[in-house]
Amino acid sequence: MSDSVKLGVAIVGCGTVGGAAATILTRDADIVAQRSGCDIELKYVVDLDFSVARQTGLAEDLLCDNYDKVLADDSVDVVVELVGGLGFAREVIERACRAGKHVVTANKALLAHHGTELYALARSCGVCIAFEASCAGCVPIIRALNEGLIVNRIDAMFGIVNGTCNFILSEMSTKGRDYAAVLQEAQADGLAEADPSLDVSGEDSAHKLAILGAMAFGQKIEFDDIPTAGIDKLDLCDVAFGQDLGYVLKLLAIAERQADGLSLRVRPAFISKAHPLAWVAGSFNAVSVYGHVTGHTMYYGRGAGGMPTASAVVADLVSVAVGSAQRTFSQLGVWPDRAEQACQSPLEAVRSRYYLRILCEDRPGVFAQIAAILGEREISISSLLQHEPAEGQAGIVPVVVTTHQAREGDVRDALAKIDKLDTVKSQSVCLEIVEEYEE
Amino acid sequence: MSDSVKLGVAIVGCGTVGGAAATILTRDADIVAQRSGCDIELKYVVDLDFSVARQTGLAEDLLCDNYDKVLADDSVDVVVELVGGLGFAREVIERACRAGKHVVTANKALLAHHGTELYALARSCGVCIAFEASCAGCVPIIRALNEGLIVNRIDAMFGIVNGTCNFILSEMSTKGRDYAAVLQEAQADGLAEADPSLDVSGEDSAHKLAILGAMAFGQKIEFDDIPTAGIDKLDLCDVAFGQDLGYVLKLLAIAERQADGLSLRVRPAFISKAHPLAWVAGSFNAVSVYGHVTGHTMYYGRGAGGMPTASAVVADLVSVAVGSAQRTFSQLGVWPDRAEQACQSPLEAVRSRYYLRILCEDRPGVFAQIAAILGEREISISSLLQHEPAEGQAGIVPVVVTTHQAREGDVRDALAKIDKLDTVKSQSVCLEIVEEYEE
Repeated sequence: MSDSVKLGVAIVGCGTVGGAAATILTRDADIVAQRSGCDIELKYVVDLDFSVARQTGLAEDLLCDNYDKVLADDSVDVVVELVGGLGFAREVIERACRAGKHVVTANKALLAHHGTELYALARSCGVCIAFEASCAGCVPIIRALNEGLIVNRIDAMFGIVNGTCNFILSEMSTKGRDYAAVLQEAQADGLAEADPSLDVSGEDSAHKLAILGAMAFGQKIEFDDIPTAGIDKLDLCDVAFGQDLGYVLKLLAIAERQADGLSLRVRPAFISKAHPLAWVAGSFNAVSVYGHVTGHTMYYGRGAGGMPTASAVVADLVSVAVGSAQRTFSQLGVWPDRAEQACQSPLEAVRSRYYLRILCEDRPGVFAQIAAILGEREISISSLLQHEPAEGQAGIVPVVVTTHQAREGDVRDALAKIDKLDTVKSQSVCLEIVEEYEE
Repeated sequence: MSDSVKLGVAIVGCGTVGGAAATILTRDADIVAQRSGCDIELKYVVDLDFSVARQTGLAEDLLCDNYDKVLADDSVDVVVELVGGLGFAREVIERACRAGKHVVTANKALLAHHGTELYALARSCGVCIAFEASCAGCVPIIRALNEGLIVNRIDAMFGIVNGTCNFILSEMSTKGRDYAAVLQEAQADGLAEADPSLDVSGEDSAHKLAILGAMAFGQKIEFDDIPTAGIDKLDLCDVAFGQDLGYVLKLLAIAERQADGLSLRVRPAFISKAHPLAWVAGSFNAVSVYGHVTGHTMYYGRGAGGMPTASAVVADLVSVAVGSAQRTFSQLGVWPDRAEQACQSPLEAVRSRYYLRILCEDRPGVFAQIAAILGEREISISSLLQHEPAEGQAGIVPVVVTTHQAREGDVRDALAKIDKLDTVKSQSVCLEIVEEYEE
């Protein structure tokens, strides 16, 4: 074996993931040493609150509340930023780079907003940033994009990258339970935060999409230009009506090349039961990637939780110890700080299939009116189905229309016009239907 | 960007995969250069028959029938061995190593039998061997094991690693078609070889299991000690009876830690419809890996075909150009040439659930006899179902028994005794039922 490489590590932020990473580096030190062939030593755990660190049973001499001391210590080669958020976390990373220390982070919000600047800073300081843990927990999706798929032009990517939302939607789909009830249970079980808005609004998925999209397409992505919808306004009846049509509703992070640029978007969307993503159940994550040479590949695993996420953190530490993270960071051409700004096309320009639910009076001529409005915009109908009225709504029926491929702007226009009909009784619902990507 | 790294490449063996790899390196040279940041130049395509090379439109000055010339050329940094088989391919690799050239190969048979010696030879010559393309085509499973999951003790692995078999079984399951008919069609469509025995016997899957098992467990695997059964003797009725019980029949490459060692085996086995592997359809491959930190992760994609396999070959070339392949090869502790011989436990020691089909006379007392024999060996019955007699077999009924977890040796013993009963009319069928691995 080669001489054992030594790597000194400081973990900044000892919450769930930080505690778990420290556990792997201490409790499982023999597994890490044996498999990696590297000598990775945890030198500091930096925080102001050491309650998790002490629960984890970390040695007291690891605990440190002074980041300056860490930065001044030459035996620290890597800083693991697990503080989260955009403020102090950014300072931790920037100061680490300037002190000549590599960075490993799981901070998706920070990288989604400021990844490009941080990669550039690291490069100018001669260090690297590794962030496998920022997207889809333990699923090695960054490595898949940067290594396994590196000779592919990536044409599309569809990800289930938020375990909380996938758990809630799985329960709604398989048990017919209501959003609010499932959310409450998920909160009680620790599967959803007390304030779940970052997850259920789709914002967390959009963070991951910004990071993954930048790496997949090798372009700069503007986070604020990612149209994002969550699962918090879904009606259970749409989950059920879609199922009848052979679809499963998932919160999808979508990135695809379209004629006029890249479309990146996060939204609840239907996917055929024949697509592997449809089977991703509970709090698991998965990302489907379509490369021009490989066609469809998919990566599946736990997207959250201390230990799975920490597995990705410590894997990045091994890559730094081995030296492959530095090589990949300095050599590959896909990093957004080396790339052009993507042309992100607006939602109106998306071409896809759509599911429309229109609540209208059950009387002759209504279908004809709806069909006529869709037809004016050359939106071709794939199926049209009238469901039974909901309880206490005699005479008012949900009509479900699925379209063939159409331009989303046209569909939205048509729906606005449909909603103005006297016979239509509330705002219609429009959900995208993602089809098996054509290879 | 760093200075562009130059890498000179010779492809030896220009068949389907060789031609596709050459195509990626020439037709898609701009994509490879842009994304990898490396200057990978195809210098030679070595073969005696250039029919594929010429169909591919490769420049004549690349074609070479003299491997000595390649070895003597200092501008060749890597030899890509795509000859296949155990004879000349081994010579190609050994001579490349001795000439100080790195090796990229897709040769699963050779690595399964002689990987350990070849890795050791490469190491002694200061070069590396990369072989992502040897297992599961374009699926980056070697990278997942060596990088993403590197800090995990791998507890179990279940792979669908032969596209031909999975296609045949998928057709049998979903369309109720007979093995022979599906095989014939697959041969006509080029999905199965004219001589399909390497695939349908399970041997090809065993090759991949030997390679993956060695990397996953970090131990030397003895290929000849992998019990291997194929799909060529399956009866369609078992596919159907299993489906009624909620199972899908797949040809699985299984590797798991058991109390007394590692069990590696290839066999058709039932898997619950609730497991993601059950949904892997057609000629796709997928590998489920259970790590002690990550729990279940899965990797899915095309396991065969020129382009997908070539994607993995050229990805390995990028890793060599970047320098990460060399680092990983020299540093990690998981390589079998650095490891101890695995203790591979025999099939009798496997503990699993089983599906038994017993063809017996439809008369009182038969169930009791069967149950008594199973009970003597403490094999607990999970379900027992009598099916309708097959056409022309009045009075003779298939009885399907599923067991709780039991020792395979005990189950085989019991079945041998059952088969000796006067009331039992032919050799019984025994198939493993793989359960969701307990994490």
